[in-house]
Amino acid sequence: MSAHNYVPKEPVQIECNIEKTLDVIGGKWAFLVLRELFCGTRRFGELQRMIPSVSPRALTTTLRHLEEKGVLERKVFPTVPVTVEYTLTPKGEDLTHILKEMKLWAARWTD
Amino acid sequence: MSAHNYVPKEPVQIECNIEKTLDVIGGKWAFLVLRELFCGTRRFGELQRMIPSVSPRALTTTLRHLEEKGVLERKVFPTVPVTVEYTLTPKGEDLTHILKEMKLWAARWTD
Repeated sequence: MSAHNYVPKEPVQIECNIEKTLDVIGGKWAFLVLRELFCGTRRFGELQRMIPSVSPRALTTTLRHLEEKGVLERKVFPTVPVTVEYTLTPKGEDLTHILKEMKLWAARWTD
Repeated sequence: MSAHNYVPKEPVQIECNIEKTLDVIGGKWAFLVLRELFCGTRRFGELQRMIPSVSPRALTTTLRHLEEKGVLERKVFPTVPVTVEYTLTPKGEDLTHILKEMKLWAARWTD
């Protein structure tokens, strides 16, 4: 392998990191759910009411995805009917910097 | 409409702004192309070599999408064969803050 073929590691790392983040927040509904949870713990029904355009099935998929990615915590209370609550983890709360920059960029450059 | 039904405008605005930004950077290839262009002007062939996993068709679609969103500028030079160069606009360069926060978040929270 000649010196000209040398590829520094950093760009690949950058690609992976941005890809990993987009994998968490890039879905159609993820950021809408995250936005609600930044305001505090929410029940499934509350999220459904706050995001009326999402189907229960898509909301379940999104919540499961975000739970698997470790950005939210799901708590089940043995009430009748059962109560399920969703809360951001510290990893999820830390997404606030990205969402803030996204809001600022759009505010600066779009109508 | 009672006071209880009042929905403040701000959350909707936030949703729209984050959605607008994801619409620009959320595609499968967009951020890989943007990453290359942050380093400077690139020709079509250079981008293809730097992102070997993208097909020419997908690269063309991505570049057209980013041009339509106003984040890059396409310049055609009447050489034989024709030379096409892509450069970030100020709007595109300003995405650096978001991508930086995405890299930092992934570095803090993922392996």
